[in-house]
Amino acid sequence: MVTEIFFKEFHTPNNGIFLRIKDSLIKTRSKFQEIWVVETEGFGKMLLLDGKVMLTEEDEHIYHEMITHPGLSLLPEGMRVLVIGGGDGGTVREVLKHNPASVTLVEIDELVIEVSKKFFPSLAGSFNDPRVKIIIGDGVKFVKEAKDSGFDAIVIDSTDPEGPALALFSMEFYRAAKKILTQNSFIVTQSESPFYNKQFIVELLKNLKSEFRYVKNYIASVPTYPAIWSFTYASDSLELDVPPKRKISPTKYYHPNMGLDTTKEIVDEVFGCS
Amino acid sequence: MVTEIFFKEFHTPNNGIFLRIKDSLIKTRSKFQEIWVVETEGFGKMLLLDGKVMLTEEDEHIYHEMITHPGLSLLPEGMRVLVIGGGDGGTVREVLKHNPASVTLVEIDELVIEVSKKFFPSLAGSFNDPRVKIIIGDGVKFVKEAKDSGFDAIVIDSTDPEGPALALFSMEFYRAAKKILTQNSFIVTQSESPFYNKQFIVELLKNLKSEFRYVKNYIASVPTYPAIWSFTYASDSLELDVPPKRKISPTKYYHPNMGLDTTKEIVDEVFGCS
Repeated sequence: MVTEIFFKEFHTPNNGIFLRIKDSLIKTRSKFQEIWVVETEGFGKMLLLDGKVMLTEEDEHIYHEMITHPGLSLLPEGMRVLVIGGGDGGTVREVLKHNPASVTLVEIDELVIEVSKKFFPSLAGSFNDPRVKIIIGDGVKFVKEAKDSGFDAIVIDSTDPEGPALALFSMEFYRAAKKILTQNSFIVTQSESPFYNKQFIVELLKNLKSEFRYVKNYIASVPTYPAIWSFTYASDSLELDVPPKRKISPTKYYHPNMGLDTTKEIVDEVFGCS
Repeated sequence: MVTEIFFKEFHTPNNGIFLRIKDSLIKTRSKFQEIWVVETEGFGKMLLLDGKVMLTEEDEHIYHEMITHPGLSLLPEGMRVLVIGGGDGGTVREVLKHNPASVTLVEIDELVIEVSKKFFPSLAGSFNDPRVKIIIGDGVKFVKEAKDSGFDAIVIDSTDPEGPALALFSMEFYRAAKKILTQNSFIVTQSESPFYNKQFIVELLKNLKSEFRYVKNYIASVPTYPAIWSFTYASDSLELDVPPKRKISPTKYYHPNMGLDTTKEIVDEVFGCS
């Protein structure tokens, strides 16, 4: 007989997804949030923060490849990368495919890292690499206090723009981030769903456009995320384009020739191009 | 108080989506299938065939733009287009943006057309265009009996590859289709989800590759469809590439510079390229 326990996530008050659950592996609470790892049927283990899907083993590669490779493939190897958030280790794992000189991870919630090390070794195993430095703390504070020009790339792998993560989407943060970047550098952030969070993306693009010369929102399909998902890239010196300078392997979803434009309605609205 | 009726579609036996339902507008049965139109909260009216989501007013543009524009933008205007299936009218609506000389729709289920005319005028309104000819019948039979070189493009807007739609994915059908195409022409078909139906796509690509010179599977995110969705294009003379020859407007999702490669794992498996 098949287990009839379903996890349900509402993406809006009117719709969402459901996944069959085999087992609950750990349910705990940190200073910041509820952390829950469940075993699903079909999607492997799943990490939930405050009841929201952060990742499943089956489709996490899509998010992690797409937040890192389009930008990092524009930089020469030996880059120094700052990752804000990303306590599960998936983003660091992908960054390491670029042969960076160093990866600094600033995660606010130490318990996310501990839980990931135990239940998601295929992601958090990346933390064992000697080039990886982990700092437990507030990403906004870290960026404001870091010394100038220390990083070639900043990857903002945050939760939704609410609560502590909200400050990671502010003009103030982007200005501080720019100060600690080298001349040939970029920032990239997860930027919610253009289907459900259009107004948020419109604002984000306007803000970034006022600070950076090249700004681009690009999309990917993450099956357990709400509708179409997006990432936003910004740089003063490196235009995001295809084909990229270097090939990265192995990847499962990311393809060097994949286009990186978002849905046309967002592009139109913000940049007035057609 | 908010309606607590939810439509639930299982994308696999273990997961799926749910949508809040406001009302049932028509539920009927044709010779071929159950046809149900419901009013959702948030996604507008939704067409269900045998309980599966065919379209919602909110996201149908993604599917219909993506099945038509990448291929048709490679042809000069005045093309003659054959649409197999597509009884809701959405594909024909998008084809008309290319100023075709003619659009022939072959739909097996007359009741789908009737229901769409009544409940989905923003799609089925396209059937009023004088260049559109509607034939009620079996698409496979039509293609086998049609005269040679009558069409510049065939768009296969079918249901899942089971039951009557299965024959639309056969080698026999593709060979017959090739015979009724002009020299500068292509076929394009909806081709399921590379996330859930990988083996199906691998087979499809192998089959098409044995008949056509240029074959490409490309993806889009349709929020109410299972995971990532895909389309497969095949031609002997026209390589699918970006940027396309002509601009099409207005579109909401399709962008002339969007990349058209599928997820890398499929490309690798079938073509052995990296």
